[in-house]
Amino acid sequence: METLRVALGGRAYPIHIGAGALDAAELYQPHLGAGRVAVVTNAVVGPLYLERVKAALQRAGAADVLAVLVEDGESAKSWGTLDRVFDALLGARLGRDSVIVALGGGVIGDLAGFAAAVYQRGIHFIQVPTTLLAQVDSSVGGKTAVNHARGKNMIGAFHQPRAVIADVAALATLPERELRAGVAEVIKHGFALDAALIGWLESNVERLLARDAAALAHVVRRSCELKAEVVAADEREAGPRILLNFGHTFGHAIEAGSGYGAWLHGEAVAAGMVMAGELSARAAHLPAAEVLRLRRLLQRTGLPVGGPALGPERYLELMAGDKKAAAGRIRYVLLEAVGRAVLRADVDERDVRAAIAAGSAASTAAAAQ
Amino acid sequence: METLRVALGGRAYPIHIGAGALDAAELYQPHLGAGRVAVVTNAVVGPLYLERVKAALQRAGAADVLAVLVEDGESAKSWGTLDRVFDALLGARLGRDSVIVALGGGVIGDLAGFAAAVYQRGIHFIQVPTTLLAQVDSSVGGKTAVNHARGKNMIGAFHQPRAVIADVAALATLPERELRAGVAEVIKHGFALDAALIGWLESNVERLLARDAAALAHVVRRSCELKAEVVAADEREAGPRILLNFGHTFGHAIEAGSGYGAWLHGEAVAAGMVMAGELSARAAHLPAAEVLRLRRLLQRTGLPVGGPALGPERYLELMAGDKKAAAGRIRYVLLEAVGRAVLRADVDERDVRAAIAAGSAASTAAAAQ
Repeated sequence: METLRVALGGRAYPIHIGAGALDAAELYQPHLGAGRVAVVTNAVVGPLYLERVKAALQRAGAADVLAVLVEDGESAKSWGTLDRVFDALLGARLGRDSVIVALGGGVIGDLAGFAAAVYQRGIHFIQVPTTLLAQVDSSVGGKTAVNHARGKNMIGAFHQPRAVIADVAALATLPERELRAGVAEVIKHGFALDAALIGWLESNVERLLARDAAALAHVVRRSCELKAEVVAADEREAGPRILLNFGHTFGHAIEAGSGYGAWLHGEAVAAGMVMAGELSARAAHLPAAEVLRLRRLLQRTGLPVGGPALGPERYLELMAGDKKAAAGRIRYVLLEAVGRAVLRADVDERDVRAAIAAGSAASTAAAAQ
Repeated sequence: METLRVALGGRAYPIHIGAGALDAAELYQPHLGAGRVAVVTNAVVGPLYLERVKAALQRAGAADVLAVLVEDGESAKSWGTLDRVFDALLGARLGRDSVIVALGGGVIGDLAGFAAAVYQRGIHFIQVPTTLLAQVDSSVGGKTAVNHARGKNMIGAFHQPRAVIADVAALATLPERELRAGVAEVIKHGFALDAALIGWLESNVERLLARDAAALAHVVRRSCELKAEVVAADEREAGPRILLNFGHTFGHAIEAGSGYGAWLHGEAVAAGMVMAGELSARAAHLPAAEVLRLRRLLQRTGLPVGGPALGPERYLELMAGDKKAAAGRIRYVLLEAVGRAVLRADVDERDVRAAIAAGSAASTAAAAQ
């Protein structure tokens, strides 16, 4: 077991990483109060891990653990599902001293975390991520949200968990497609912030996809280190944290334009990174060879390197509501080099159109050669 | 014009109090960023003040002010209305640098403040309270919320405004019933925290109800001083702030048990204070004469001194979900003396039943003699 720390003063918290972590009562125990505990999970993760987590919570002293099951998939990040979670919590009379445990992937973490952020004006919660994407990215940093028909993650809160308990052994049951989608966020961390991580992935991505325990532990640890550092410096994304959104402006447009759930978030981020990489070559002097490196690493991972051919107009329309927009202008996270992302508002729209075209489905086959 | 300050470090903010304040562009100007402005108001307040507030915002530099109108009354604090507000904001493509202005009473402040708390994970907002209740209480302190079928204010956030602009001249248009309901919260502040304020009210309540400008300004200023001090000491209600809930445990039960909107919040708090006073006499040694003082002051204000005769069982059931509950026990804000409230968890349920009976409709006529 290894423990990192997100240094946020009074809201600092540990990230525990290790095989078997979700069974370790002592990791939950310091964060349980006098109130009750609700585990929010879904119909896929629940049958695999709910009883084990409940047992650990009971050993940690939780008297009466409420389980709240929601549907699987991105559609759970909805207003309606959120209301059903509140109904379950209120129906069981959980008080302001209760704790929510988010057991699942990024969707569950975002949904249950947001429920915790606003239930009775905010209660504590613990992240128990069971997907690679959640372990390397979404469970750390306190971003919580649900989607709105008009945009992804549009309603949410910054609400830090009290602890993150990342059990890398849980990745054994992860569907292949979700494993690959999780690697997309590792690739994102590397291209945005850490060239060494990209070098490591170029040597080891096949080991990672074969679920080699040491390789998985390495990327979870390194990703959490990077993320913890950025979040500690900029909790509410007023500064450097925004760079972790590399690929996400285009990626959110892909998700919204295709109907939520058609693309996994990590898949959309992969294709979005290609567009952002193409834009970086045009507008931030990123050498074309580095865009090719990005495409090749994504392909080796089995991730898409092109978004759906919605056409540049539709992409621009979908991106106009991006949360990073300021004074009405879309701002883009671009790469000046591998591991060196920057935020840019002064991008020529012609370059954006060209980047979308170069990163859309029609161009993908050609680019892949 | 007078300005108080809520001392909350990086989230400190001014409370401006005065006749004509809502027209003063310079009070809005420091809080507008590069983004857009949305005024959330309702069909009653909008026709009276919306154009004036828009004009002031435009003089302050806001280019394009969006107006979002919601229905009047407590029913607007709903999940559905909140979603319609988000739809309007997203439809107009308001970004994370936008500002919401809450123009109205406590319902609008709670609803628009919560919308600001979670829209794109939180944007700035300004409170422009137009009712006495909102000016003396709800616009200060950052409590925002919507109701749930299972309880009042169950979904919400602590989200401080950037400024409170309390125009006492706006109270001229306030319906009589709402004026009286606002005085209930002033009485609450006095009984919980400030015996001198009760003395002042006992001498001046008729002037207040006649809308004497100096009397109104006095209670708004004194209430905001008390509230600002308590909030600065305990932003998230982990300590002394909870004492401001005097009368609210019973009051919320009255509101929920009668269907939201049947009782104004201040009216329910008035009857709730009678029950809490009766309980204080039984469980906290408050002299019976002080309970009588409370009843008499409420009666002179034209406020109810008895709740609906739901029966003690129903009250207890409704209160069991109270947000102040800890480890499953309801906690009560009681008075040891006028101006000295305390939080108590060790209250005998028989005393609670007796207090409910003594403060319910059937007993009111007798008690009023």
